[in-house]
Amino acid sequence: MTGANEPGAAMKALIARLYPICRSITGEGVRETLGILCEEIPLEIHEVPSGTPVFDWVVPDEWVIRDAFVKDGTGERIIDFQAHNLSVVNYSRPFKGTLTLDELRPHLHAEAEHPDWIPYRTSYYQENWGFCLPWNRLQAMGPGPYEVEIDAEVKPGSLTYGECFIEGRSAEEVLVSAHCCHPSLANDNLSGIAVAVELIKGLMAAKPRLSYRFIFIPGTIGSITWLALNEARFPSIKAGLVAVNLGDPGIMHYKKSRRGDAPIDRAAAHVLKARGDHRIEDFSPYGYDERQFCSPGIDLPVGCLSRTPYGRFPEYHTSADNLDLVREEALAASLAAFREIFAVLERDGTWLNLSPMAEPMLGRRGLYAAIGGRSDTKDRQMAMLWVLNQSDGRHSLLDIAEKAGLPFALIADAAEVLAAHDLLAPAEGRVL
Amino acid sequence: MTGANEPGAAMKALIARLYPICRSITGEGVRETLGILCEEIPLEIHEVPSGTPVFDWVVPDEWVIRDAFVKDGTGERIIDFQAHNLSVVNYSRPFKGTLTLDELRPHLHAEAEHPDWIPYRTSYYQENWGFCLPWNRLQAMGPGPYEVEIDAEVKPGSLTYGECFIEGRSAEEVLVSAHCCHPSLANDNLSGIAVAVELIKGLMAAKPRLSYRFIFIPGTIGSITWLALNEARFPSIKAGLVAVNLGDPGIMHYKKSRRGDAPIDRAAAHVLKARGDHRIEDFSPYGYDERQFCSPGIDLPVGCLSRTPYGRFPEYHTSADNLDLVREEALAASLAAFREIFAVLERDGTWLNLSPMAEPMLGRRGLYAAIGGRSDTKDRQMAMLWVLNQSDGRHSLLDIAEKAGLPFALIADAAEVLAAHDLLAPAEGRVL
Amino acid sequence: MTGANEPGAAMKALIARLYPICRSITGEGVRETLGILCEEIPLEIHEVPSGTPVFDWVVPDEWVIRDAFVKDGTGERIIDFQAHNLSVVNYSRPFKGTLTLDELRPHLHAEAEHPDWIPYRTSYYQENWGFCLPWNRLQAMGPGPYEVEIDAEVKPGSLTYGECFIEGRSAEEVLVSAHCCHPSLANDNLSGIAVAVELIKGLMAAKPRLSYRFIFIPGTIGSITWLALNEARFPSIKAGLVAVNLGDPGIMHYKKSRRGDAPIDRAAAHVLKARGDHRIEDFSPYGYDERQFCSPGIDLPVGCLSRTPYGRFPEYHTSADNLDLVREEALAASLAAFREIFAVLERDGTWLNLSPMAEPMLGRRGLYAAIGGRSDTKDRQMAMLWVLNQSDGRHSLLDIAEKAGLPFALIADAAEVLAAHDLLAPAEGRVL
Repeated sequence: MTGANEPGAAMKALIARLYPICRSITGEGVRETLGILCEEIPLEIHEVPSGTPVFDWVVPDEWVIRDAFVKDGTGERIIDFQAHNLSVVNYSRPFKGTLTLDELRPHLHAEAEHPDWIPYRTSYYQENWGFCLPWNRLQAMGPGPYEVEIDAEVKPGSLTYGECFIEGRSAEEVLVSAHCCHPSLANDNLSGIAVAVELIKGLMAAKPRLSYRFIFIPGTIGSITWLALNEARFPSIKAGLVAVNLGDPGIMHYKKSRRGDAPIDRAAAHVLKARGDHRIEDFSPYGYDERQFCSPGIDLPVGCLSRTPYGRFPEYHTSADNLDLVREEALAASLAAFREIFAVLERDGTWLNLSPMAEPMLGRRGLYAAIGGRSDTKDRQMAMLWVLNQSDGRHSLLDIAEKAGLPFALIADAAEVLAAHDLLAPAEGRVL
Repeated sequence: MTGANEPGAAMKALIARLYPICRSITGEGVRETLGILCEEIPLEIHEVPSGTPVFDWVVPDEWVIRDAFVKDGTGERIIDFQAHNLSVVNYSRPFKGTLTLDELRPHLHAEAEHPDWIPYRTSYYQENWGFCLPWNRLQAMGPGPYEVEIDAEVKPGSLTYGECFIEGRSAEEVLVSAHCCHPSLANDNLSGIAVAVELIKGLMAAKPRLSYRFIFIPGTIGSITWLALNEARFPSIKAGLVAVNLGDPGIMHYKKSRRGDAPIDRAAAHVLKARGDHRIEDFSPYGYDERQFCSPGIDLPVGCLSRTPYGRFPEYHTSADNLDLVREEALAASLAAFREIFAVLERDGTWLNLSPMAEPMLGRRGLYAAIGGRSDTKDRQMAMLWVLNQSDGRHSLLDIAEKAGLPFALIADAAEVLAAHDLLAPAEGRVL
Repeated sequence: MTGANEPGAAMKALIARLYPICRSITGEGVRETLGILCEEIPLEIHEVPSGTPVFDWVVPDEWVIRDAFVKDGTGERIIDFQAHNLSVVNYSRPFKGTLTLDELRPHLHAEAEHPDWIPYRTSYYQENWGFCLPWNRLQAMGPGPYEVEIDAEVKPGSLTYGECFIEGRSAEEVLVSAHCCHPSLANDNLSGIAVAVELIKGLMAAKPRLSYRFIFIPGTIGSITWLALNEARFPSIKAGLVAVNLGDPGIMHYKKSRRGDAPIDRAAAHVLKARGDHRIEDFSPYGYDERQFCSPGIDLPVGCLSRTPYGRFPEYHTSADNLDLVREEALAASLAAFREIFAVLERDGTWLNLSPMAEPMLGRRGLYAAIGGRSDTKDRQMAMLWVLNQSDGRHSLLDIAEKAGLPFALIADAAEVLAAHDLLAPAEGRVL
C-alpha cells in the first residue's frame, strides 16, 4: 500500500537520482539515464548509428565530454564543468588554449536578467565551443589571460532511445513521449520522465483496454528518428501526449494537437476543466516534440500536457531549473491528470439506448427514487437520464458529459449501470 | 368585444374553478377536469384501460380516494384530506389503524424550509401510503396514539386524457401539451391548461394555415400513453410546445427541443427576445413531458414554454402554488407569447425575389420615399430591402428577420407587400 | 520621387479641383469630372442613351441646370445656385413664378439640427422642384412675395461613366467602384474618386498579378447600368471594393460583401486589424453601390471600404461635407489600406510543404539561428515554422497568418524564402 504522497515522493526521488547526469542528444548521459529507468520498468533500448538518414535529417555523431574549465591566473577553475554540467555549451567541440578575456568573450554566455544563474546553451549542428556562467561571475572576470580547455570529442557512435510498450486488449495505441536529452535540468525533462515511469507502473498493473507506448527520446532529432523508424505504426496511434514540465508549481496546461479536435484534445480539456484552474491552448509549431508529431505529413493526434509551458517560467533553461523547482505534490497532481485523461480514453465510447421510445421505467428496475414529487435531482439520476437521452449512436460518453456538464466518470458509471440492466448496448465495433 | 385584460380574467376564472379538484394520473379528478373543459372547447375524451402496454410502461390501475385523515386523542382531524387534497400522498394505498407518532412518522412528509406549507408527494408505482403536512404542525404533534385512515382504492380502470384537433389548410401539425394530473396546484398544471383552452378558442376562430393538436394528459404516463398510441402521427408534427407554469410573475423561459435548432426553437427564441426579458435554455432530459417527446427514438421538435421553469419557484409542489401565485396579467402575457410564436410558424417561409438583378425600382411602384438625400431609413423600407436581398431561396423570413435585427412581423408584412407587387413569389411546396 | 505626404496632397488637390462642379446622375457635371480624370489616368468614357432598359430600371433623361434662385423684394438672391450648387434640389424641373413664403415653403428644405448648413436633396424620378438652404436663413425669410426661377431642363441624352482596366497576368479581376454623381460634396464622393485615381497610377506602374477594373459611375442607376451591360464579366470578378468616404478623420470601416466570407472580406478584415483601430460590419442592403453588386441575382464578392460609413458623420449630405472635412493624412492612410488589401489578394495562395515528414532541418540551410537554447523566438522564424506546418494544401497564406497571429506580409515573405530553398511549392493552378 502506498500513501497519497508516495507517488510524488517516488517521482521526486527518481528525479534527484537522474539530476546530476550530463545528458545530451547522444552519448553516455542518455545511456546512463535509460539504464536507471530499466531498474524500474521494462525498457527496450535502441541504438541508431550516426549517419542514419531520418527524413530530412541525419543522426549526428556522438558527443563525448570528459572535462571543461576556464582557469584564472591563480589556477583556480572559475568556470568548471565538474561543478555544474551546464557550464559547457552542450556539444562543444574540443578546445585548448590560453586566451585573454577579449578573445574568450565571444565564447561566454551569461544572462544579465538573472545574474546568479547559469544559462543552458547548445550547439549541436554548428561546430563551435563555449562556456555558460552567471552574469555576476562574468562581470568579475579580469582581462586574463585564462587557461581554457574543453576535453570533448564528436565522433561516430549512435543515438540512444528507450521504448516501453504495454499491450492492451485493443491494438489502438496511446503514445507518450518524454525527452531525455537535457543535462542538469529538473523540471524541463526529468519531471516528464518521472511521471512517465510512474504511469507505466500503474498501467502494467491495470490491464488497460488500449495499448500504451512510452518513448524516452532526445528532443527533436530523437523524435524525428523514432518517427522515421516507425511510420508503419502511425495508423495505430489514436492519441498521444508529450509529457514535460510536470513538477513546477504552475497550473496545468494542455496544448492541443494540430488537429485541434482529436479525442485526446477533448479528453484533456474535459479532465483539466474538471480538475480546476488550467489553460487550454491551440497548437502552434513551436515548443517540444509535438512539433514533429504534428508536422503536416505526420499529423498524429498528439498534444502536450505540462504545468508551465515551454519557456514561460523564469528558471527555464537555467541552473535554477533544479530540484527546488520540482514539488512532490505538483508531480502527484500531474500524474493524476494523466491517469484521468487515460481513463476517459479507456472508457469513452458510443452506446445505444435499447429502449429509446419515451423514457424506460427506471423505477421498476430500482434505478429511480421511489417517492417522487419535490424536485430532488441527484447527479447520478441525471447522469442516467442524459445517457439514455443521448445514446442514439451519435453521441459518445464524453459528448454526453460535456453536454450534461457532469464529470465523465459519473456518465461512464451511469452507462455501465444501464448496460447491466440491458437498457444500453455498445455501438458496434468497440473493444470493451 | 373583449378588453385587454379579459383573456387573463377568463383564464384565472377557469383556474379557480379547477383548483379544488383532487386530480391524479388516473381517476375521477381528471375526468371532472376534462368535463369542465368540454364546456368551453370541443374535446375528445380518451380512456385507456389499465394494463395496456405503452412502450416500456403499462397503464396503471386507477386510484380512488374518498377520504383520509389523522385524528388526535380528542378526535380532531389534525391532518385532513377534506381540508386540502395535498394532505394525502397521491396514490396512497388504503390504510386504517391506530399508531403512535413514532410509528406514524415514516409516513409523514413535511419541509422545514417552508414550515407553513404542505408539500406535494406521490407514490404512483410503489405501494405505500402517507400524509403531507406543514412542518410547524408536525413539530406540534404529541406522542399519540393517533387514529389514521386512508379510504382509498387502487383497482383496474383506465387512464383518461383529452384531445382537441383544429384542422388547418396544411396537414402539418403543431402539438401543444398540458398535463392535467396535479391536485390543488395552480401554476404547475392549471395555468398551462387555461392558456391552452384560450389558444384553442382563438385558433378555432382564426382558420390557421397549420393544423393544431392540443392534448391534456397526465404527466409522464399520459404522454407516454399518447405517444404509444399515436406513432403514425409523428411525421406530421412539425413543432410542439409543452405549456406549463404560465401564471407566475417570473420572466418567460423557453427550453429548446432536443434538436436544438428546430423551427419551434428559432421561433420561440425570436419571439421571446422581441418581447423583452426572457431566458432560452438548452434541452436537458429532466422537467416536464418534453422528456418523453424528446426521447431519442421519438425526438419530436417539442420545446417547453413557461414562465418560471420546473422546480425553480419556492412555491413549486407545495400548497403555496395556489390561486395567489397566478396573475391575470402573467397569463395574458403568456398567451400573447404563444400566439406570436404561432404567428411565426404560420407566416414563416422561403420566398424568391422575382427581380433579383440589382434592386428593383421601388419608387416607381410607390414603395419608396420619393424625395431622397438625407438618410431617413424607415424600418419598413429596410424590411423590404432585406427581404428582396435575401430571398434567394436559401433564407426563410425568420432567417431574414434575425439577420436584419427586425421583428418577424415587419419582415413578413414586407414580404406580403412585395408579393402583392409581383416582386416576390413563394418558393415551391409551401401551403399559403 | 514622392515624399510620404505627397499622395495625400495630390489627392487633396484633385478633390479641390473637382469640388466646385455641379454633378448629378447624368449631365455635363459628370462629363467635366471624368474629363479631368482623363488628364491623370487612361479612362474609357461610356455614354448610355436615355431610355436604355437596364434590368428593372431605365436610363433617365439628362438633367441640364443653368441657374436657380429665389430673390426677395429688393431683388437680392437669398437662395442662389451660383453661390452653392446644393441650393437647388438635384434634378429639379424648370420653374418660374412669384410666390409668397406660404406657397414656396413646401419646396424649401432646411435642417433645424444644423442651422447653418445647406442640406443636399435630390428628386431624380419624381417630377418636382425645390431649394435647399440653411435653417437660419429660412427662419429669417419674410412673407414674400419672392421671385423664383429654376432654369433647368430634363431631356433625352445619356448617362456617362468612366472605366479603367489594368490588365494583370491573370484574367481574375478586382473591381473598384467610386460614384461620381454628387455635386459639391467632398468626402462622400470625391475622396473615393481621388483614392481610386492614385491606386490606378500605382497599379499601372506595378504590373500586378491580378487584373483591376475601376469604374467611376453615378450612384445606383450608374452601377445598375454598368452591371446590366457587363453580365459576361461577373465570373471573372473575384473581389471588389466600393471606395467611399475616404478623407474624413474617422477610423476605417469595412462592410462585408453579401457572401460574408469572400477572399476580399477576409483580406480587408486582416489588413484593417493589423493597421489599428477599425470596425468590420456585416453586409446590409443599404448604403452605397454594394446594394447593387450584392443583389441576390448578382451577388458579387464586393465589400465597401470607407472611413466613416454612409450617413454616420454629421456633415453627411450637407454643405459641411466640404474641403475642410477631407484631410491629406486620412486620404493617404486610406490609400495605404487599399494597397495592403490588394497586396493580400496578390500574394495569397496555397502552398505545399515539400518536406512534410517532421520539420526540415532549417539550420543546415542557414534558415535558423545556429546557437539554440534559451527561447529566442523571432517572428520571422515563427512565420517559417507556421508556413511549413500548415502548408498541406488546405490552408492559404492568409489562413496561416490568421492562425499564427502574424502579419500577412511576414507569412508571405516566409513562403517566398522557403520556396527559394525548395521547401515549398505552389499548389496547382495558381498564377504567380
